[in-house]
Amino acid sequence: MLIVGERINSSRKGIGEQLEARNAEFFRQLAIEQVANGADLVDVNCGTLVQGEEEALTWLVDVVQATVDKPLCLDSPNPKALAAALPRCKQRVMINSITGEKDRFEGVLPLVKEYKAQIVALCIDDSGIPDDDRKRLAVATALVDKLTTNGVPLDDIFIDPLVQPLSVNQQNGLAVIKTIAGVREKLPGVHIICGLSNVSYGLPLRKLINQAFLVLALGAGLDAVILDPMDKKMISLLQATRTLLGQDAYCRAYLQAVRQGKIEV
Amino acid sequence: MLIVGERINSSRKGIGEQLEARNAEFFRQLAIEQVANGADLVDVNCGTLVQGEEEALTWLVDVVQATVDKPLCLDSPNPKALAAALPRCKQRVMINSITGEKDRFEGVLPLVKEYKAQIVALCIDDSGIPDDDRKRLAVATALVDKLTTNGVPLDDIFIDPLVQPLSVNQQNGLAVIKTIAGVREKLPGVHIICGLSNVSYGLPLRKLINQAFLVLALGAGLDAVILDPMDKKMISLLQATRTLLGQDAYCRAYLQAVRQGKIEV
Repeated sequence: MLIVGERINSSRKGIGEQLEARNAEFFRQLAIEQVANGADLVDVNCGTLVQGEEEALTWLVDVVQATVDKPLCLDSPNPKALAAALPRCKQRVMINSITGEKDRFEGVLPLVKEYKAQIVALCIDDSGIPDDDRKRLAVATALVDKLTTNGVPLDDIFIDPLVQPLSVNQQNGLAVIKTIAGVREKLPGVHIICGLSNVSYGLPLRKLINQAFLVLALGAGLDAVILDPMDKKMISLLQATRTLLGQDAYCRAYLQAVRQGKIEV
Repeated sequence: MLIVGERINSSRKGIGEQLEARNAEFFRQLAIEQVANGADLVDVNCGTLVQGEEEALTWLVDVVQATVDKPLCLDSPNPKALAAALPRCKQRVMINSITGEKDRFEGVLPLVKEYKAQIVALCIDDSGIPDDDRKRLAVATALVDKLTTNGVPLDDIFIDPLVQPLSVNQQNGLAVIKTIAGVREKLPGVHIICGLSNVSYGLPLRKLINQAFLVLALGAGLDAVILDPMDKKMISLLQATRTLLGQDAYCRAYLQAVRQGKIEV
């Protein structure tokens, strides 16, 4: 199980201002807290900047990797920003993301190959966002095929089923759960990742929906997740679910997390 | 989705004493509160009494059905207690439970047939408790076969996969989840029910484990559950999960539950 800490993202409340101000201490704290709470990778995203993503992403990479000893997830669809930031990375990175759209695929693939990056592959292609799980699985299959044909190892590919709001279509949650189960069954060896919170966009008490969605997604076969490691309830449910799924010998990790005060009921 | 309210059970803390004292007002309150919080059936269990289960169960039936207009779940393996209480029931009941054990099957079946009861069928037979999901599915299949052969409609059968503690074997949770998925796939038309809390027996912060287990079980296909309707977090996760599974048109039930103050994050 990989946890990607999502807090350093300019679309989150208050982050954009700190990024504009280049407040290094603020981002150091965010990185340290996330790693202390279980992040295996630290996401860096400055996609909402009107201009200067290349310089900002590079600055964030420098700040975060001078602070914590974890790999980064470069969260940008922009090949120029990725190309600027990648040479600064001291550890192998994850890139989020590539898609089956021709331009985006061709723009990002050379960087994945050159830097031997882990790659998040979003279930979308030039025909748009697939509206059900069968089409998503077909897009995922095509993406895995194209990536492996181009020399990307299966173990470096993280399929993202593309989470969309329930408030738009009440089948959007189930489509993701079924896609995860389908990828797990039909594409053995590939990883599955997603962010969760889009699913609850537009609904009240979003955190509850996100909590249940995390457990369902893990049950279906999700093995990497983009979330806020400071959300103790989410981390608690993640651990409890892994224990329930038989992924925690003698419940040791659960018992240790309880002793360390990391579990919230 | 059926919710069986589990609070009137003599094995729960403080209940045995009130039952010995025949404190009708206490049990009326328990029944009213459970129904107000979503119970579709009210469980009555006095199995821990050293003697007098027949009289006690009958008394409980009279008290509860004079108070709330919901069917009862007679929770006893004892044919004598069931035979004493069943004639008092004004609505059709659920009986919890029958098993594949020869004596128990033959003791309870005539009552199921005479009273056209819904029946909880536990995945256990004379060879003992099956230790994996394949054997449980085989026991479930045999039970459904024997019950339907004896004229019990499929729609009245509720398979209980038999929840055992993770603390005894870390595969016990997964065995239940896989059994639920197997029954859902292989035995269409049958219902699946379970109590949840046994899974966390012996572990600290049990409620968290129970919460994640509820969501996983619903995701696998559970469509009836024995729980405490006063546990607001469990009811909240139940509703959120149903919404995520596409069982809540336009998220209406979720939005209504939020407005009614029934949702807790």
